[in-house]
Order: sequence, then C-alpha cells, then structure tokens
Amino acid sequence: MRGFGVHAMMWSSLWDRAGAERAISGAAAYQQDYIEIPLIDIPSTDARYTRSLLEEHRLRATCSLVLPEAAWASIRPDAAIDHLKAALNTAAEMGAEALTGVTFGGTNERTGMPPTQEEYDNLSRAIGAAAKHAKTLGLQFGIEAVNRYENHLINSAEQAVELVERIGMDNIFVHLDTFHMNMEEKGLAAGIVAAGSHLKYMHMSESDRGTPGFGNIAWDELFGALSAIGFHGLLVLESFAALPPAMAGATSTWRAPAPSAHDVLDKGIPFLRNKAEQYGLFKESRKTTR
Amino acid sequence: MRGFGVHAMMWSSLWDRAGAERAISGAAAYQQDYIEIPLIDIPSTDARYTRSLLEEHRLRATCSLVLPEAAWASIRPDAAIDHLKAALNTAAEMGAEALTGVTFGGTNERTGMPPTQEEYDNLSRAIGAAAKHAKTLGLQFGIEAVNRYENHLINSAEQAVELVERIGMDNIFVHLDTFHMNMEEKGLAAGIVAAGSHLKYMHMSESDRGTPGFGNIAWDELFGALSAIGFHGLLVLESFAALPPAMAGATSTWRAPAPSAHDVLDKGIPFLRNKAEQYGLFKESRKTTR
Amino acid sequence: MRGFGVHAMMWSSLWDRAGAERAISGAAAYQQDYIEIPLIDIPSTDARYTRSLLEEHRLRATCSLVLPEAAWASIRPDAAIDHLKAALNTAAEMGAEALTGVTFGGTNERTGMPPTQEEYDNLSRAIGAAAKHAKTLGLQFGIEAVNRYENHLINSAEQAVELVERIGMDNIFVHLDTFHMNMEEKGLAAGIVAAGSHLKYMHMSESDRGTPGFGNIAWDELFGALSAIGFHGLLVLESFAALPPAMAGATSTWRAPAPSAHDVLDKGIPFLRNKAEQYGLFKESRKTTR
Amino acid sequence: MRGFGVHAMMWSSLWDRAGAERAISGAAAYQQDYIEIPLIDIPSTDARYTRSLLEEHRLRATCSLVLPEAAWASIRPDAAIDHLKAALNTAAEMGAEALTGVTFGGTNERTGMPPTQEEYDNLSRAIGAAAKHAKTLGLQFGIEAVNRYENHLINSAEQAVELVERIGMDNIFVHLDTFHMNMEEKGLAAGIVAAGSHLKYMHMSESDRGTPGFGNIAWDELFGALSAIGFHGLLVLESFAALPPAMAGATSTWRAPAPSAHDVLDKGIPFLRNKAEQYGLFKESRKTTR
Repeated sequence: MRGFGVHAMMWSSLWDRAGAERAISGAAAYQQDYIEIPLIDIPSTDARYTRSLLEEHRLRATCSLVLPEAAWASIRPDAAIDHLKAALNTAAEMGAEALTGVTFGGTNERTGMPPTQEEYDNLSRAIGAAAKHAKTLGLQFGIEAVNRYENHLINSAEQAVELVERIGMDNIFVHLDTFHMNMEEKGLAAGIVAAGSHLKYMHMSESDRGTPGFGNIAWDELFGALSAIGFHGLLVLESFAALPPAMAGATSTWRAPAPSAHDVLDKGIPFLRNKAEQYGLFKESRKTTR
Repeated sequence: MRGFGVHAMMWSSLWDRAGAERAISGAAAYQQDYIEIPLIDIPSTDARYTRSLLEEHRLRATCSLVLPEAAWASIRPDAAIDHLKAALNTAAEMGAEALTGVTFGGTNERTGMPPTQEEYDNLSRAIGAAAKHAKTLGLQFGIEAVNRYENHLINSAEQAVELVERIGMDNIFVHLDTFHMNMEEKGLAAGIVAAGSHLKYMHMSESDRGTPGFGNIAWDELFGALSAIGFHGLLVLESFAALPPAMAGATSTWRAPAPSAHDVLDKGIPFLRNKAEQYGLFKESRKTTR
Repeated sequence: MRGFGVHAMMWSSLWDRAGAERAISGAAAYQQDYIEIPLIDIPSTDARYTRSLLEEHRLRATCSLVLPEAAWASIRPDAAIDHLKAALNTAAEMGAEALTGVTFGGTNERTGMPPTQEEYDNLSRAIGAAAKHAKTLGLQFGIEAVNRYENHLINSAEQAVELVERIGMDNIFVHLDTFHMNMEEKGLAAGIVAAGSHLKYMHMSESDRGTPGFGNIAWDELFGALSAIGFHGLLVLESFAALPPAMAGATSTWRAPAPSAHDVLDKGIPFLRNKAEQYGLFKESRKTTR
Repeated sequence: MRGFGVHAMMWSSLWDRAGAERAISGAAAYQQDYIEIPLIDIPSTDARYTRSLLEEHRLRATCSLVLPEAAWASIRPDAAIDHLKAALNTAAEMGAEALTGVTFGGTNERTGMPPTQEEYDNLSRAIGAAAKHAKTLGLQFGIEAVNRYENHLINSAEQAVELVERIGMDNIFVHLDTFHMNMEEKGLAAGIVAAGSHLKYMHMSESDRGTPGFGNIAWDELFGALSAIGFHGLLVLESFAALPPAMAGATSTWRAPAPSAHDVLDKGIPFLRNKAEQYGLFKESRKTTR
C-alpha cells in the first residue's frame, strides 16, 4: 500500500450501486491510486460489484469502519470480533488490501473517565483476533487514533503504537489522521515520530474537515516528518465537504467546511501532491542516502 | 481590559476560600494583570472575600461561565437571562470587569442538527437582555465561540460577530480561544480578521490544552494578526493541566496535557510574553504608524 | 493599483520587442492584472511599443529598477535624480502606474559600515526630488527594502517607513519582498504591521527564489497579516527560475531555484490565489466589519 | 558529540586570554555541553590555556573557521590543506573534538559563475587531505553549507552530502545552519532529510541572526525532522547580537539583531531546549520504537 488515495464519501455517503459507481469512477478520474470504502452496512454491501468496478477502473482499495455501540471492543470484545470478521470478509471479497479506521470502537464512545486496563485488555483481545483473521485473508489491519471528543481510548500515536506493539502482529499498522493529530499531538511531527515504522496510513484532513491547504494543519512540518521517517504508505484525502445533512450529527458538521466536494478535490489534491513532491516523499533515490 | 491574564483553574477548580486564595495569590505571583474566575456555583460564591483578595493582591478580574442545560439560551432564554443576571451581579460584587465564556449555552449542547433561526432568535433575546443588565452594572459581556463538538451554535468568529452585531450593544464583545479556533477557523488569522474590532478577549490555549508553545497552535500567525488589527484586549492563558479527575468527562481530558500546572505557567507565560514582544502587541508607538 | 501581478523576467530578461511580446502576452495568458517591467537599459527601451502591447492585452503595468553604482543615491544623489527622472519618463510613456524597486541604490551596495546620517540625507533628497517628478507624471513611487547582503541602507520595513515618512509625500509607498523579509523581519507579520498603510506593493517570492509554496516562507502568517491590515495593493510574483546564466552573478543564483518558469507559474499562481482567497484578501465585504 | 552548545562569539570576538575566559565561563554558566571556538588567528591562539579553561569548567569544545582568501580550497587547495592542518593541530591541542565551519572556502567567495567541476575537484582533494589529518588526531571534520551570498560552492545540504560522499571518509560530517537553510532549502525538513545520517552538527541561528524564537525560522518543522531522522549530534546556538562594529562588514550586520547577547541567551536557550523536549530530541527511549 503506497501512494495517494481519497475517501469515497467525497462522492457518496451510501455504498449502493450508484454510490459505488460515482465514487470509483470519480477517484479514478482524479488519478488516485486508492479509494477508501467505508463499510457502513456490511450485509447490504455488494462486494462483487465493487470488485468489478475497481478492476474496470484499475483502482486499488482499502476499507474502513467505525464500530457500532453494540460492538465496541472495550466492553463487548466478542461482538467486536464478529463485526470485524464480517467486515474483513467483505473487504477481502471486494479485493481491498486493508481494513482500518476506528476498528476498536466508536466515534461517540466516552465513559467520562480515563481509559482502564480492562478496556485496553478487551481491545487487545478483540483486535488481536481480528488481525489474525485478517492475516488469513491476506489483509492489513489498521488502528486509527481519533480525538478526545470522539473516543477516550486511543487518541494519540503513542497509544496506538502501544496497542499495536502489545498485540505484536506484523499485519497491524498505525493509522493517523491530521484532523485528530492537530488536537492530540504535541506537534504533528512528534506524532509521526512516535508512530515511526508502524505508520502505514494517513488521513490527510484539513483542521476543519475542509479543503487541504486552507486551514491550520502544519503541512510542512507533517510532510517533512513523513519524509524523514521514510514513510511509504498511503496518503488518503478526507473531507466532510460532501456529507448529507443526515450525517451532520454523527460528524459534528454544522457548517459546510468547503464550498463543494469539487473545491476540495480540485484544490486539495494538487496541494497535497505538491507538498509530497517538495519534501521528496515517495522519492526512491532518497533511500540510498539514509 | 488590556494585558495578560490567567485562568483560575490553574490553581483550583473550586472557588471556595482556599481555592480563591491559591488562585489569586498564584496569578499575582506570576505577575499577571488579570485573573479569570469561573462562576461555577454562583449562590455559594463569596464575592466579597474574592474582592478583598483581589484588592490585596492588586489583581484585576473577569468572570466566566458555561450555562447549565436548564438555562441554555437556545431553548430556555428566560432561564438563561435569570442565570446570567445572577452571574453578572456576582461578578460586579467581586469587582470583575466582564462576564464572558459560553454565555449563550453549554459545552455539551448539540441537537444533532445545524442551528435554526429560532435558536439564534432566542440567543439574541437572552444575550441582549443580559448585556443590558451588564451595562447597568458597568460590565462588559463576552461571547466565546467554541468548537463543533461542544456546541452547534457559535463555532466561528464570524458567527460570534453576527450575533454581536445583531444585538448591537457596545458592551458586548467577541471572545475567541485558540484551542477552538484551531478546529474552526480557516487559518487563525482569518478568525482574528473576522472578529476585528469586536475582539476584546482571547483564551491562549495550546492545541491539546497543554503548555502554550508545545503544540500545534500557529502562534506566529496568531500574534501577527492580533498586532495587525491593533488588538488591545486581554490575553488569558488557559490549560487543562491541573484539572481534577472529576472534571475529565466534562472537558474530555483523558490524559494529562502537561506534566503539571507549574510546567504550563513556567514555560507558557514566558512563551506568550515573548511572542507579544516579538510582534509588538500592546506597543503604544505602533499606533502612530498605522 | 490592486490585484495580482507577475515580474516580466519570468519570460524575458531583455526588454527588446521580442521580450516584451513574450512577457506581456504571457502575463495576460496567466490572467494577471499587472506586469512588472524592469527598466534595465532606459535609452533603448521602446516605451510606445510596450504601451501598445499592454493595451492590446489589456494588461496594466508597473516599472522597477535597481540603480547602477554611478547613480547610487547615498553617494551621488544628483546622478540618482537624473536616472530616476529618466526612468519615470519612460514609465509614464509606457502607461505604467508606478516606479518601484531599489530606487535608492544598488543590490551590491555595501560600505562595510552601518548606514550614516549623511547617506540617509542623500537618499531623502534624491527620493524626494524623484517622487515630486513622479507626481507631475501621475505616478506612484516605491521604495523596496532588500536584504543585508544586497544593501546596507534599507533592509527592513521600519527603515523604509522612516524614509517614506521623512519625505512625507503621498505618492511614495513601501514595497516589501518576502524573500528579503524572510531574512530581515522578526516574523513576516511584524514587517507587514510596521509598514502598515504605507504598504502598497509586495514581491511574492519564495525563500529560495523558486516556486511560491515550495519553500520556507510563512505564507499563512503573511497573508493573515496582509488581510488584517486591510492591504489593497499589488501582489507580484517574482522568481529567478528563468534567469539566463549571464545574470547568475548579479542575483547570486548558482542553482536553478525551480525546474522551469512554467513550474513556477503553474504551481505558484494558484498557490498565491488560494491563500489570498483563504485569508479574504481583496474581499470587499470584510471592510464593513472592521 | 551530542547535546547543546553555544558559539564563543556570544562573549568575545577575540580569542585572547580574557576572551577565552569570558566565553568558557559564560557557556558553562548557561549549562551548555559544548562551546564552539572560532579559530581566527591560529598562530596567536594559546591552545594550552584554552584546554586548561575547558577542563576547569568541564566544558567540551569544537573549533570552527572560515578559510581566508589565500587558502580557498577551490583555487588554492594546497594552501587550504596547510591552513586546515594548522587549525586541526591547534584544535587537537585544545582538546576540541571537531573542526567545522566553512572549511572549504570563504564567506565572501563568489566567482559570479555557477560552480565548476574543477572547483569541486579541488575541494575534494583539499578536504580529503585535511580529513585524513584530522583522523590521525582523532578529530571529526565538518563541512558547513552557507547561503548563496557568502559562497557559490556549497549552499545546500544536498551539495554538502555530495562532497562528503565523494570523499568517503567516516570522520567527515555535514554541518547545517538554520540561517542559511532558511534561504537555500525547499523546506527546512527537506534539508535535514537530504543530510540524513551525515548530519552531526547544527547551527541554531534565527533568520536574522538574532534571538532564536523571535524570527522566521520554522523551528517546529526543523525539530520535528531532526527527531524523525534520529539526530544525535550537536545543536549550537549562534547569533550576531554581540559582534563588535569592526565585524559588521564581514558579517553584513548593519543593525543589532537583538537587544543584547544576554537577551539571546536568556530567551534563546530555553526556547531551543523546550523545542528539543517537545519533539523528543535526544530521548533514548524513542529509538526502540523505530
């Protein structure tokens, strides 16, 4: 997994046939290497059709999810395992290469208390089992740190690394998101350094979920650190510019963070590519000098 | 109101006599111009004792609050007015110069929907009445924009300005907080420019609520813009480094954002003062050249 | 004078007919409002042909220069006056709206000593006389601060303001250049604030004279401050990407600062326009709120 | 060589007994690990007395120089070798651990033309011979990239690396300086990445040679990248705040870049230490996760 990707919700918040067509052809038109497909309603997902669209457009894919409350790993690890296995099976059937996201819990999961050892024990057991299943399917498995308002368990790169190292499987990776890092890390580069070689997946999201390059994210610091650790994973553009009103509550999006999805894509994609070029990300020759 | 201040919660989360003594003597020891006193439990607040401590330590004060759900202005404007009047009376009795904060609602107030005209109408009516009362007491009245996770009504400088201009009283001001701006503004300076001459109060809070200068806030951009608009209000250091565990849930603070309150004060205060010096904030002579 | 411009040297280092055609049609093709035309060899400049090209392409213009050693104002103020008057006459004949640049001296002018009062007196007399002549022609007259390696007299915004205020004419303005500011100002915004309402002209140059957005310039801080002071002058892209080898010594350009002039224009122009949009520069409505 | 250091010119521009005493006791008082001693007049340097002072104050040292025109390696490689050997002998006698700086030429060395292969061949021969001599003395040998106005040969990290790799000795390292990088690198982090494991020495200099933290250097990007490459060399504070007027011309310092040397030390040292702490520089434990 390496290169540039974009989240499918830039084109559709549903993964029905029409949504899948729009998203996959759209990502291909913007010459992305990957599309990130959210697994919202697993049973109703037509994985075979998705696979055929991906093949037709020569696009590679990852899948992502957030666990529903009934399957939060901190309190219902067995339900989490079942949910994750179903998601992994669907991802594999689509031909996706990884399952990532808030694979350990919810984005509205907060007990009002700091995390407990028991919660982390449950996370470790559930993620370990899921990652083992992922391995049998040839899939990578990601853990995305999210901000304090969304979850109390894994907010920082350091916490994600601790969980990954505790489980100790080689197909588990750390997934960071600039929107969340902007709140949680003491300097974006500090988060990148903490994640180190575990880091394989980045959500490239502006500080307000709008167009990359039009907010507060310290992109130069970020790209500099990614280049310096020799990052060679995926950079996935994410924005909430195209969300339907029905998802406002789930994502705390009360104002449009950008004029349109096209504004985000037309300005954000060149911005991110230019920064990657400036800092020599993905540049082969650099390796020899380090 | 002009200069540097610090939030009382760096020393105490309660405003009993011991807490007031610790906070007021502490702020004075750090040579602050102002202390911000949170009005958490108004009836039990000993305003006279606070006033005597302020006089003893030659410290000036502002008061702040968040409305309890029973007094959210969006849905219970009359209750909000009552609550705000009581708070204003207490603030006046303390000798404070302003009441500010989330004076329109809660930090856990979200309907799951974008704001409605009716909600804003209620805000306007409640704040207008409260500000009128403040004026009779000689107090300034602030409106603090907070981030999308805490409230759905006033997240940006632009929204705060709209409310202030709609009410149209000269003792109402915009209060911005770098922690919230970091999520909501398209560049910190853009928020400062949007607030313009309405801006009289800043919470200087690092991106993770830790030590100013140790996170992602673009301080140079911020101080540059403050200097450029000719800001001459209050800069109040705020951090959640000293919160008791009981307040973790209310503030979404699951990890200590700094090693200690002293770390925040000892490193953060010089950092902020140095940046103000660098950008010529509060420099009289600058006015003549503009 | 207001909007976006580009320096003619992106297309030609000579201002013969072919060079003028390339530059003016080029700037027009990139939809610039202005072109900056360097007056290198005044007697041989065909001002009428330039004027006809500008009219044909509906492009507006400014002129710029650096004084040759024989006409440095610090030591030869009368020669400077003669040189500047000739330049102003040519600029007026072209239909340009301003003469700017290092109008007081050279880019290789250093005595090895700090500036003296006599040098500043000479500058004041020469610039004053030139600006008076400019006024009779309806031209604005700019003073560009350049870095310590190029000149020892006017390095900072503050120094440029001092000279402008000493002369006290209303058609003299301060011209800053981000490349020089990056070495001389204590924060780019501090320079913008120091220049204040005298600032009418900006060279938008990356830190290495390459493509804007690919270097160390703190563009967010800069645009934030420009917006905050209500800047409504000209933003002129400048790069040394297209210089011929013969100009390497005069500009200290030993390595190509960008792959090509087109790289600079194709990436730099959208970058600068996007930042202006982000920070609301040139946005009319902003004025009402300040 | 690892930790924090400071340039001796913060206390003295001469290395006579009085100057050495002031500088060494001064650096020790600021709890530095190293002092950088400029070898300006080698024959008159009392290396034994310096060594005794270093031992007395338990301070470690490096030496630095700029070659005089009579010994520029590009055109007089044999003279350069002689000069460098003499400097190395003196450095060894002092007990210094490295000789670094513009060890290949001058800070006023410019031919007006891009570098030639012959010039680089001469550099390679001279530096190679000097580094070999350094090795016999147990000394490290550094090559400092400086900006385009000071020298046309080695301006960027990439050029310094090319020279180091061409010579291929293990006691030669790359020395970067933030003041120069700010003009020459496409993002400070890009320079750090280009230098990679060759980087052992940093001049921490603000963009105007004033107090670190009071200018345009992107310190967060810089420290983030240093942490990310696992830098474990020396960070040496450098400023021109304390230069005597006689050195104005040699350093292009026409205005005081800071109020005083003490301002630089009292504000700059904590600033740099805090940033190193924030980004986990020199933190042992980080190594295990990378």
